[in-house]
Amino acid sequence: MTDAFDPPSRKLSRRALLAGAAGAAGAATAGEAASAGNPKNLPPNVPSWTRTLGDGVAVRPYGQPSKFEKHVIRRDVQWLTASRESSVSFTPLHELDGIITPSGLCFERHHGGIAEIDPDDYRLMLHGLVDKPLMFTLDDLKRFPRVNRIYFLECAANSGMEWRGAQLNGCQYTHGMVHCVEYTGVPLKLLLAEAGLKTSAKWILAEGADSASMARSIPLAKALGDCLVAYRMNGEMLRPEQGYPARLVVPGWEGNVWVKWLRRIKVGDQPWHAREETSKYTDLMPDGSARKFTFVMDAKSVITSPSPQLTLGHKGVTVISGLAWSGRGKVKRVDVSLDGGRNWRAAKIDGVALDRACVRFYAETDWNGQEMLLQSRAIDDTGYVQPSKAELRKVRGVNSIYHNNGIQTWRVAPNGEVENVEVS
Amino acid sequence: MTDAFDPPSRKLSRRALLAGAAGAAGAATAGEAASAGNPKNLPPNVPSWTRTLGDGVAVRPYGQPSKFEKHVIRRDVQWLTASRESSVSFTPLHELDGIITPSGLCFERHHGGIAEIDPDDYRLMLHGLVDKPLMFTLDDLKRFPRVNRIYFLECAANSGMEWRGAQLNGCQYTHGMVHCVEYTGVPLKLLLAEAGLKTSAKWILAEGADSASMARSIPLAKALGDCLVAYRMNGEMLRPEQGYPARLVVPGWEGNVWVKWLRRIKVGDQPWHAREETSKYTDLMPDGSARKFTFVMDAKSVITSPSPQLTLGHKGVTVISGLAWSGRGKVKRVDVSLDGGRNWRAAKIDGVALDRACVRFYAETDWNGQEMLLQSRAIDDTGYVQPSKAELRKVRGVNSIYHNNGIQTWRVAPNGEVENVEVS
Repeated sequence: MTDAFDPPSRKLSRRALLAGAAGAAGAATAGEAASAGNPKNLPPNVPSWTRTLGDGVAVRPYGQPSKFEKHVIRRDVQWLTASRESSVSFTPLHELDGIITPSGLCFERHHGGIAEIDPDDYRLMLHGLVDKPLMFTLDDLKRFPRVNRIYFLECAANSGMEWRGAQLNGCQYTHGMVHCVEYTGVPLKLLLAEAGLKTSAKWILAEGADSASMARSIPLAKALGDCLVAYRMNGEMLRPEQGYPARLVVPGWEGNVWVKWLRRIKVGDQPWHAREETSKYTDLMPDGSARKFTFVMDAKSVITSPSPQLTLGHKGVTVISGLAWSGRGKVKRVDVSLDGGRNWRAAKIDGVALDRACVRFYAETDWNGQEMLLQSRAIDDTGYVQPSKAELRKVRGVNSIYHNNGIQTWRVAPNGEVENVEVS
Repeated sequence: MTDAFDPPSRKLSRRALLAGAAGAAGAATAGEAASAGNPKNLPPNVPSWTRTLGDGVAVRPYGQPSKFEKHVIRRDVQWLTASRESSVSFTPLHELDGIITPSGLCFERHHGGIAEIDPDDYRLMLHGLVDKPLMFTLDDLKRFPRVNRIYFLECAANSGMEWRGAQLNGCQYTHGMVHCVEYTGVPLKLLLAEAGLKTSAKWILAEGADSASMARSIPLAKALGDCLVAYRMNGEMLRPEQGYPARLVVPGWEGNVWVKWLRRIKVGDQPWHAREETSKYTDLMPDGSARKFTFVMDAKSVITSPSPQLTLGHKGVTVISGLAWSGRGKVKRVDVSLDGGRNWRAAKIDGVALDRACVRFYAETDWNGQEMLLQSRAIDDTGYVQPSKAELRKVRGVNSIYHNNGIQTWRVAPNGEVENVEVS
């Protein structure tokens, strides 16, 4: 900040600041000089937005961000996929703080584009090894007891392009397939109880109404545990790209099992080995075998500020900030390193730390322009410690696309620029 | 819900349902019949959204609600105020669930319209009884340590039109001047410490950069306590109508002291008796005196479903739901009555119950078409019990506009319609 008696860099004269700092209450302010006219007889340094009435209420019945925030958007990477209908857009993590992701910025991952479903025509079928197959309308679902839970959702392929080394310059791209919102939904166990399970029931198949008919097998124990059929996020109805009007919520598990535009749940006695759990969403190991049904997202973290899309614009006291999450429970601790993992210290976890939700962490340092190799590692309440990329590659090789939760490194150059690097 | 072997009301033939329920995996679905053509050789009951590719990723870089949710908006009441620049729009509480309010639906209350501030030209001045007056840019504020807190914000005038009896038919209008979001901001005490307080300091004045220069006095103890200078809500930058780029957060206190478009904080030794704490935001008592500086919002609750804008469309098991909050701490319990306050039972408080945040409550009943007089009352962790409107009027009369936290009554008629009523 600036001593009020020093002239700041833009548009303010020393005289204006002195007038302000001297306390001309009700009139003194900061901002641009009025060019001409002074209808309200205010001093010339009063900015336009104080001089004139602004827009009234309900001009925007559904509000939008400021026009000065147009750069805060989801972005895709055009070379990554053959078409935008089966592709991904990334959450701008570097432009956010706290733990809640605004719905308009939640990353997208579609396999056949966004199904645009008329809620009056929506149906959810529950069948298979049940006593009584059922068909639910959206109104039916809304009549059931419901719960609200804040959970992270991470795509299994988040950071997938980093398996073979630093590829993408920005946490939006390296880690932006994660978001965290409040869901409202019916516990799936209530719907299953309504239908009645046969004793042979062991798995469910969840299938979407999109043109890819995205389908995944989920063990019954999880379905009867904490899964929800959710129809709201952050209070309002789900956004179309997040599965409107209903999706599965599978806390802590990889995003593709959180089937969107959910149209069918079939109960069976074994997994279905559907397309998205054979050709995709399996983890190719060094010996050529594939890990299957690797549902749980292990503890992970990333520093969002500073990061490659945000230059560090000042020296002195600097707040390093990031997000951490674990599919196994609560994040208990986050460590931060400034020197590429040689020395670690505990960051401060801010506010509520919820089970399988993102947590926000902060660590302060006094930056004097020295090179920094910033890293963070999450430790969850099972004792699991986020591994280095080297440790992960030792076990999993580099052929996998999925489940890369290795420690990320950002190099801060003396000029404040930040880049994605690997440390050995 | 419907037994899958019974034909539902719309568009589905028994044959389609049987096919579905018989488990034609990958093809069976619910929805409209295809009118002509069948490019993918799918059965005729597969709906259009499964037949065709949807929009790809990043078609909407900043996402929006479904086109089927256009009725979920903030609404104003045109007869209420002389102009929309000094008016209010209301949160559609009946269309929401959970505790987080989506930013686009947070109610508005402006005194001179929405100040549209260029963040590069934004300045916050801190002066008065300080050792060193300071001027902060937005980047300055973002360099300070920050915290994230979920708080409710309620306008002092929320429910104000109900003092003299049931006036408005819908919780959007009777209680829609409340919202609850996650704020990110700098503890105000850090900014005050940076400037250094004179020993005579007792109050601060917070002033907005809007054309009304909205200004309120706040005791220094509160300013040094939990107040924040916030620049984010729900992760992203504040919305323009919520004070972009920075506002005061004054947890538990009436909304008008949460000064938006914050441009100036002056430290003084007494309150300023500004316009908005003399002619407005004082509570006219029966004897003609006015209560001043009635900052704290007492415990309050409202049933949002069913409520007058939502007809109760079915008999049988019914989930009654609502919101509760207290400016003094946590909501400890919410009671619900079906008979206008003669009998009460505890509702279930869902999920996390945070200090001075909204909590969501649910109570189930089996409705057989009898008349119901629905009420809710909040009890906070200080032991305070939300009063009836009659109890409140006995003490405060009916001349006040502000701080009406009386128990709300909805009459559910045998046909499921709901109206705002008074019970004696």
